Amino acid sequence: MPESVAIVGAGLVGCVAALGLSAKGYDVSVYEMRKDPRTDAASGKNMRSINLAVSDRGIRALHYIDSAMANRVLRNVIPMTGRMIHDATGIRQESQPYGLFGESIKSIDRLLLNRALLDELDRRDIAVHFGHKIVDMSSVSVDAPVALDFLTAGERRTYTYDYVVGADGAYSQSRYLMQKTMRMDYFQKYVAQQYLELYIPPADSMDAAGGVPRYSLDPNHLHIWPRKEYMLIALANHDGSFTVTFFCTWALIEALHTADAFLTFFRSSFPDAYTLIGEEALRQAHRHQPRGALMQLAVSPFASPNRRSVLIGDAAHSMVPFYGQGMNCGFEDVHVLMKLLDDSDDLKEALARYTPARKDDVDTICRLAYENYRNMSAQVLDPLYLLRKKIDYVFGKYANGRLFPWIPMYTMISFRGDIRYSDAERIEKRQAGILAFLSWAGAGGIAVLAAGFSAHWFRTLSRH
Amino acid sequence: MPESVAIVGAGLVGCVAALGLSAKGYDVSVYEMRKDPRTDAASGKNMRSINLAVSDRGIRALHYIDSAMANRVLRNVIPMTGRMIHDATGIRQESQPYGLFGESIKSIDRLLLNRALLDELDRRDIAVHFGHKIVDMSSVSVDAPVALDFLTAGERRTYTYDYVVGADGAYSQSRYLMQKTMRMDYFQKYVAQQYLELYIPPADSMDAAGGVPRYSLDPNHLHIWPRKEYMLIALANHDGSFTVTFFCTWALIEALHTADAFLTFFRSSFPDAYTLIGEEALRQAHRHQPRGALMQLAVSPFASPNRRSVLIGDAAHSMVPFYGQGMNCGFEDVHVLMKLLDDSDDLKEALARYTPARKDDVDTICRLAYENYRNMSAQVLDPLYLLRKKIDYVFGKYANGRLFPWIPMYTMISFRGDIRYSDAERIEKRQAGILAFLSWAGAGGIAVLAAGFSAHWFRTLSRH
Repeated sequence: MPESVAIVGAGLVGCVAALGLSAKGYDVSVYEMRKDPRTDAASGKNMRSINLAVSDRGIRALHYIDSAMANRVLRNVIPMTGRMIHDATGIRQESQPYGLFGESIKSIDRLLLNRALLDELDRRDIAVHFGHKIVDMSSVSVDAPVALDFLTAGERRTYTYDYVVGADGAYSQSRYLMQKTMRMDYFQKYVAQQYLELYIPPADSMDAAGGVPRYSLDPNHLHIWPRKEYMLIALANHDGSFTVTFFCTWALIEALHTADAFLTFFRSSFPDAYTLIGEEALRQAHRHQPRGALMQLAVSPFASPNRRSVLIGDAAHSMVPFYGQGMNCGFEDVHVLMKLLDDSDDLKEALARYTPARKDDVDTICRLAYENYRNMSAQVLDPLYLLRKKIDYVFGKYANGRLFPWIPMYTMISFRGDIRYSDAERIEKRQAGILAFLSWAGAGGIAVLAAGFSAHWFRTLSRH
Repeated sequence: MPESVAIVGAGLVGCVAALGLSAKGYDVSVYEMRKDPRTDAASGKNMRSINLAVSDRGIRALHYIDSAMANRVLRNVIPMTGRMIHDATGIRQESQPYGLFGESIKSIDRLLLNRALLDELDRRDIAVHFGHKIVDMSSVSVDAPVALDFLTAGERRTYTYDYVVGADGAYSQSRYLMQKTMRMDYFQKYVAQQYLELYIPPADSMDAAGGVPRYSLDPNHLHIWPRKEYMLIALANHDGSFTVTFFCTWALIEALHTADAFLTFFRSSFPDAYTLIGEEALRQAHRHQPRGALMQLAVSPFASPNRRSVLIGDAAHSMVPFYGQGMNCGFEDVHVLMKLLDDSDDLKEALARYTPARKDDVDTICRLAYENYRNMSAQVLDPLYLLRKKIDYVFGKYANGRLFPWIPMYTMISFRGDIRYSDAERIEKRQAGILAFLSWAGAGGIAVLAAGFSAHWFRTLSRH
């Protein structure tokens, strides 16, 4: 009889974990507090989030489980080959490609992706119990299975599983319950920024209804309005619309507490976006749309010492959205766990090895995501940053693999899932060091030439 | 009508907060999950903790509220004027005084102190509701009072208060509920050490029963068996016994998992303590006494932005016990809050100012407590540390106030509650800097003399 696994949370990472462990032969059941997002009309509103960008790590994890499944699930993505920088005049747009060879990250609506993944669970007869809120977890030893208590329709029910995987997001209840029975280090810090969700409708609603969606902006770019202290971004949806997110500090949004102040600010900061979103929609969003908090969160270890429970995805590591890696990192968690299972075919053994195998990488991407805010909101305009991008482009495209190894950081993170996050950071440090050395050596070379020339000139002068 | 305050937790800090706010004219009620420790026979076992040392900050806070109360509550303390270092032979003991002028910290049993404080609450007619577990807290705005839901005897009851003070310890439920409604940064980290509680009985149980307690060790010292990687400490109780605590890494205690291994280890490490505790008692403790985890914990901010709720004591900042400041810091929280009330007589205003007024000091003592493990377990044997203690003694006793200001660090933390923790750290950094300068200057002076002498000698030689 196969061992049983309960997965808490039927969000993106929970579904992928269910598919992965089921593919490995485990008897998987999924428990989700909310209703089925495929039938619940309100779920669109409840699953607030900026649009997601699937990139190599996420895609690799899906293909590792089942390529046909991966292709079905990802059929509706919109490739984004670069950033489109919108300047303050509202007139100029400038494209900055993401990759060296036209690689793209893929925009997808969270709700669509979640529904597609749930359909895949159905296809494999993996039971998903909606409306089940976990309220207790007793996990006593390495030899006993885990008892899980759920509250459903006012009743309390207990189920027993060999293992439990907590994939219930940043505000994880399973993490809270695990913390009661083990020594779990925990860190949570809110950043100074908040976000407000906005929306650009399809360019021509008549046409969109007719079939072919029409976009107001290039759908194959991630649009950024970088203004240093605040920024706006937009990602295309499949129907011709864009999901737009306004990031700024809590101090700023609180200062803009009247609709008029907000509209005036928005029009002068993002004139083109102001027109595309529309004054009335902005006024409504300002009044009704809640402000989202952004948090960094880390735990250690991920797995309990009795090797019966583990946290993955946002339950184990929440990051700010500025590197587009939150979901990708969560999918990679499942990928790492599956590769550990390839080695030993024993989930206990895999869980014992999981934290040391994964912790560094997760900490690295959380840090990089935080640092990338400056990058997206300000550095994209910085001449030195742009010069570095050009050098990366030339070295990465023409030197790498021929003359010397050179891979731009963004490429390693988003397009090279075979390179660990922590290795990517090490490689980038080395590359930055080489550039610093070259620039000093260049300056030094010029100084030597200058010194040589002056010596020559001095000798020449002295001769006369 | 006075404003109302609910205090969650009737432990030491919760009781002191109740006394303090009641003295300031608030209508205070206290809610406690456990039973009344004065009537519940099991409470001695449930309130596991090493003995406490009350020092100046804690005493000051109590006297600030009511001197007569402070004197009653502290009447059973045992003064400890220094550390008694037990060497590895089990024969030699060496006293290291804590203060310059015979100052003492005071040993007290947690349960006795808690009972005495609860008696003081009764004396002031402050209602304490035992057996009330907080399960929900809704605190919506600055203008509305706080609704608190408690579970008591299987029933759910809601009460409304103007303010709520969470004083329910490191595993605070009120903190968990506050986190749901505000952005609270949170940090929790377990240290490598665990602790195991042990016990030295009175020297002569016949005599102790008769009246005058007799001690096996000097009761007016905090006894330490410093062994670097592990250590034992003992604090006197009022009845002639000692509460003993064994600190070591989790790795070590897990390696000593058989009783025989533990006994052999214990006898060779602490021969005198082995005899005093007794083999059978050690065997029982090894088998039945749970290992205690030690955690550092910090939150920010302490008070909610709507200025209706606040965390104090271990709920807001848990520290390891190595500076004996956990409870003292919690009492000082109340003291700081009361001084803010002296300024404004408005608890909303006081809560708005509390986090900036308190955060630095709390972070400082948490860090110092962690660093003090090395101090207690190893440095007390280090000749350089002992030299520094001697310099501190001479400068602190004879120079301070006459020639130049000089206050030893331990004195500032434990005997000078008028100096903020963060200021103490700054002053100590300056003092350490002066000593480093003097030792360099001394070395420099010697070098100059030596150079002068060799020059003279060289000249003398050259003359011949």
